[in-house]
Amino acid sequence: MNNERLYQKLTPYMDLAVEAHDLLRGDTGHEIGGVRHQQSRFAHGNVTTITILNEEGEKSMGRPKGTYVTLDSVELRHNNWEAHKNITKNFAEALKKMIADFSLTPSDPVLVVGLGNWNATPDALGPKVVNTMMVTRHMFQYAPEELTGGLRPVSILAPGVLGITGIETAEIIQGVVEKVRPKLVIAVDALAAGNVDRIASTIQLANTGISPGSGIGNQRKGINQETMGVPVIAIGIPTVVNAIVIAFQLFGHLLENNPSLNQSLTDEEMEKAIHQVLGSFGTHLTVTPKEIDELISTTARVIASGLNQALHIAINPNDYAMYLH
Amino acid sequence: MNNERLYQKLTPYMDLAVEAHDLLRGDTGHEIGGVRHQQSRFAHGNVTTITILNEEGEKSMGRPKGTYVTLDSVELRHNNWEAHKNITKNFAEALKKMIADFSLTPSDPVLVVGLGNWNATPDALGPKVVNTMMVTRHMFQYAPEELTGGLRPVSILAPGVLGITGIETAEIIQGVVEKVRPKLVIAVDALAAGNVDRIASTIQLANTGISPGSGIGNQRKGINQETMGVPVIAIGIPTVVNAIVIAFQLFGHLLENNPSLNQSLTDEEMEKAIHQVLGSFGTHLTVTPKEIDELISTTARVIASGLNQALHIAINPNDYAMYLH
Amino acid sequence: MNNERLYQKLTPYMDLAVEAHDLLRGDTGHEIGGVRHQQSRFAHGNVTTITILNEEGEKSMGRPKGTYVTLDSVELRHNNWEAHKNITKNFAEALKKMIADFSLTPSDPVLVVGLGNWNATPDALGPKVVNTMMVTRHMFQYAPEELTGGLRPVSILAPGVLGITGIETAEIIQGVVEKVRPKLVIAVDALAAGNVDRIASTIQLANTGISPGSGIGNQRKGINQETMGVPVIAIGIPTVVNAIVIAFQLFGHLLENNPSLNQSLTDEEMEKAIHQVLGSFGTHLTVTPKEIDELISTTARVIASGLNQALHIAINPNDYAMYLH
Amino acid sequence: MNNERLYQKLTPYMDLAVEAHDLLRGDTGHEIGGVRHQQSRFAHGNVTTITILNEEGEKSMGRPKGTYVTLDSVELRHNNWEAHKNITKNFAEALKKMIADFSLTPSDPVLVVGLGNWNATPDALGPKVVNTMMVTRHMFQYAPEELTGGLRPVSILAPGVLGITGIETAEIIQGVVEKVRPKLVIAVDALAAGNVDRIASTIQLANTGISPGSGIGNQRKGINQETMGVPVIAIGIPTVVNAIVIAFQLFGHLLENNPSLNQSLTDEEMEKAIHQVLGSFGTHLTVTPKEIDELISTTARVIASGLNQALHIAINPNDYAMYLH
Repeated sequence: MNNERLYQKLTPYMDLAVEAHDLLRGDTGHEIGGVRHQQSRFAHGNVTTITILNEEGEKSMGRPKGTYVTLDSVELRHNNWEAHKNITKNFAEALKKMIADFSLTPSDPVLVVGLGNWNATPDALGPKVVNTMMVTRHMFQYAPEELTGGLRPVSILAPGVLGITGIETAEIIQGVVEKVRPKLVIAVDALAAGNVDRIASTIQLANTGISPGSGIGNQRKGINQETMGVPVIAIGIPTVVNAIVIAFQLFGHLLENNPSLNQSLTDEEMEKAIHQVLGSFGTHLTVTPKEIDELISTTARVIASGLNQALHIAINPNDYAMYLH
Repeated sequence: MNNERLYQKLTPYMDLAVEAHDLLRGDTGHEIGGVRHQQSRFAHGNVTTITILNEEGEKSMGRPKGTYVTLDSVELRHNNWEAHKNITKNFAEALKKMIADFSLTPSDPVLVVGLGNWNATPDALGPKVVNTMMVTRHMFQYAPEELTGGLRPVSILAPGVLGITGIETAEIIQGVVEKVRPKLVIAVDALAAGNVDRIASTIQLANTGISPGSGIGNQRKGINQETMGVPVIAIGIPTVVNAIVIAFQLFGHLLENNPSLNQSLTDEEMEKAIHQVLGSFGTHLTVTPKEIDELISTTARVIASGLNQALHIAINPNDYAMYLH
Repeated sequence: MNNERLYQKLTPYMDLAVEAHDLLRGDTGHEIGGVRHQQSRFAHGNVTTITILNEEGEKSMGRPKGTYVTLDSVELRHNNWEAHKNITKNFAEALKKMIADFSLTPSDPVLVVGLGNWNATPDALGPKVVNTMMVTRHMFQYAPEELTGGLRPVSILAPGVLGITGIETAEIIQGVVEKVRPKLVIAVDALAAGNVDRIASTIQLANTGISPGSGIGNQRKGINQETMGVPVIAIGIPTVVNAIVIAFQLFGHLLENNPSLNQSLTDEEMEKAIHQVLGSFGTHLTVTPKEIDELISTTARVIASGLNQALHIAINPNDYAMYLH
Repeated sequence: MNNERLYQKLTPYMDLAVEAHDLLRGDTGHEIGGVRHQQSRFAHGNVTTITILNEEGEKSMGRPKGTYVTLDSVELRHNNWEAHKNITKNFAEALKKMIADFSLTPSDPVLVVGLGNWNATPDALGPKVVNTMMVTRHMFQYAPEELTGGLRPVSILAPGVLGITGIETAEIIQGVVEKVRPKLVIAVDALAAGNVDRIASTIQLANTGISPGSGIGNQRKGINQETMGVPVIAIGIPTVVNAIVIAFQLFGHLLENNPSLNQSLTDEEMEKAIHQVLGSFGTHLTVTPKEIDELISTTARVIASGLNQALHIAINPNDYAMYLH
């Protein structure tokens, strides 16, 4: 299966721009028109910034114009306090920059939305993050001013999923946005990666919000500036890989390891085998580590702490674990 | 302390119309102008209907015009399958009648809101009920018609409390109502009673919705037709009594048991003792049974099952435990 | 890869005796020495009984001597009240028979243990079941005799997992068994299947207890008559398939669909591809449906209700949803 | 009601030695025979140490011989990072001293037991603490030595309550102690105070373990050296006051405020009023603040962090929020 065809097959199940970009570029590593790609390092990992510049880039990447920042660190997954403090600091800086690009002042209100199903551990990252971070909006109405110095009014929402509420997630958020009138929405979600090594080792920030059909829960309606009327920053960490992606990867490596198979093995045979194995659950199957509860708990803390630092000027990187529930 | 004065003191901490009415009528049991009072029996308990007819009734009762139905049964609290089935049936009938009075057709959409703080057991009744009942609204968009026959589109929401989200509960609901456009909102909440014997033995239905300041969580903004733009039925079960109510009751009984004290004991002395005992928590203290988790779990099932029966014509009293999560 | 070799590779990741048996018999369906195999039907599914008769059977099946009963019904997974009632009835009958074979009287005490990690949804079946079923042991000490007629003293335990408590699960159970002195332990666990279609559609009962190394959590020490000193019945429902099993199945189907590959594709190439795809998580990756929370919730109800019916003579199949929390 | 009589009435509902001592000493503040009483201060609060020296002290205090240390700080209840860090440090020091008095070496294994019902927020402190603190015992078996330097093998257990498991809490712990063979058991529990101002502002440590009948859940069997075979340290924070204590306090203050009532008001009249108000729930009613979820969450963090610091020499007060889940 050629890269182009593979890309078409797998891209609906891959939420990371950086992986889509890698897949598109293929082994040759050619440039993708309309897309800029930059890399830098920090003590415990790498930062990759992919910018989709124009319609050409949008078309090849299958994603809206905007900036997609990825922080990679395998230390995110381990129980390493110093590393987490440093990853959090770098994540907060990337987020701060994105917020600043939307010209928000330090006192503009922000709504943080934790997407996903709190009853299914691999999908519970978003709700976990918003329940761990600091909530301040109500303090501005009821508490004296000296308590709110250096803080921004932040409210949170965990809207649940369609199967729980009977309501499209985006509709709930729209309704609340119209009442709360934040200047920015930040949507936190568990993501589906294209590679298991990305699970709990990657943070993606996108100033584009969330497009229809993405995320583990596959929102039917976008959560972005178009639907919300205010800018939306999406933050996500991969917690699963779709089983269909695993299957195509296995065949891909098989063909790579033994190129002679390219002659004898047809795309149809591969797809038939996938169909046989995934059975009636089909594309609803996800691959996740057994220790997913620990991974969610650890990474939610990093995101929650980074949100606190990026949103409130009174909070600095040394306060890493402070103000967390 | 005379009844009128006591009524003024305690009424902010008492959510049941029937108790307010009893307190107002006092020992003489005189009629209250502008208020109608009816009683009937069913196999396992009583039904009391208080109707506030006009402004005079509103003023004395401190509640808006409308109908307040109370079902009482001490069996609600016990683990008695037959009794629960029957209480549920009677509750569903009372609710059906209220819904019918708003001229809803069997296919008009309804939003059920579970008020309260899911992290504090005595306040978690509402969230528990909505997570136990049947949700159908999404089936109408995606499932074939034969699956939805006899069902009504029902969606649910557990908006949390101000301290969790930073957003007024009523604002969240308003936002969602404007998107989902139900013909009716049903708000389920844990209530504060005026007597511990009411805990987990009483169900109140009110076609007036919820007034500002009522409920354990003390909503600051009403959840009613005025704020929501559609009718609101409030359903509640007492799970606590405010400590200040207990204190006044103790003194009340003391004076009743020994009328000579009326001469020697002043209102100020009683209020001073209350102030000394309740300390800095003041009116934030509630009295609740140790086994509150069992009581919430048992009564949530009755309310959830009754909602299923009242909302969907395809569901009947024999399906008591069916369709519950 | 021949069947024998495949069997050796995959059997550590497959908890169902019926699947091990199928894999061993291969396409030819030959008899396995020392193993008896029987099938029957009920209205909504099939019952397969595999009996390992002697050491020869133990050796080929990699499991201790004993009886393994499997109920299969795809209806278990769907929201079908009548089917669930009937599956529950059949499951309870199979369990009753197993209990009777251990010569327990209807008043002999039983301890039901819910194995697994309550924080990770796919592993939470056991804790969910024990928290849903009826607990009666304490009633025999404190309640009047008329309340306990037809009931058996049943206690429950959710011992957690090593990563949560720091203690081997089997050690906790041993300690409690020595104090509570039940005549039988029933251990409920989420299982790993060899095929995704088995997820939430199969119930396995085994009168052998649980062998070391089996179950999603991979107990290091057995939970069986040898370690507990009393008979142990194991009950499980598959909730995951190990990713390594999925990988071998994909390759298996590929070779089946295109037998010419058997010449060109080596075992080493396949294993290398698997190694490349599963990365550092390796055999810790499991495949599970997105809607796992619903599946756990639905199937836990069936097991809990079946346990109630099988353990207490006063409870019959018509009480399906009664006595559930 | 004289002090002696009041003491007899209320002491079963009061878990703090310091309050029993105050009540016994009465207004005159006389010394209690066989009891030593010491006080000291730290930056954010007070430490009171009550030592019951002999049988005379045991009899008057209704508690076994041993040391009861109480830390008081109203800051424990507020969201004050610096204060919490300091309270935690002082709590850890008091605990370290108690552990040292039992001659434990830094590598002797310890089992921490979180008592109470995780489903009822006011009773959930113990389970919350053990699930927040660091668990290390399994690392000693499976992890390399460089990871465990400066750590002690610590395991945890949340045994639930009789109504959930059907098993006496003490029996579960005894069974686990016999398998795990710790050199010390630490039992963490939510307590009942004699004054609402003690709620979430007091930490009690006792080197006596827990006596039968104490704690919110009222253990029937002691959790102490006698039943466990190893020393038991009990740690608790008040989260409720029994309603009957509130009632007696109200009357007590009434009589204090108006001494003339002593003539006209009889003990029987007071007890009758209490009986009338508490109704069928009787002594099962507890008074707790509405914001109990926040109070449990905040104080559990302090206890968990203090346990980490006291149990592992590698962890110091600056690591306050580190190693918490």
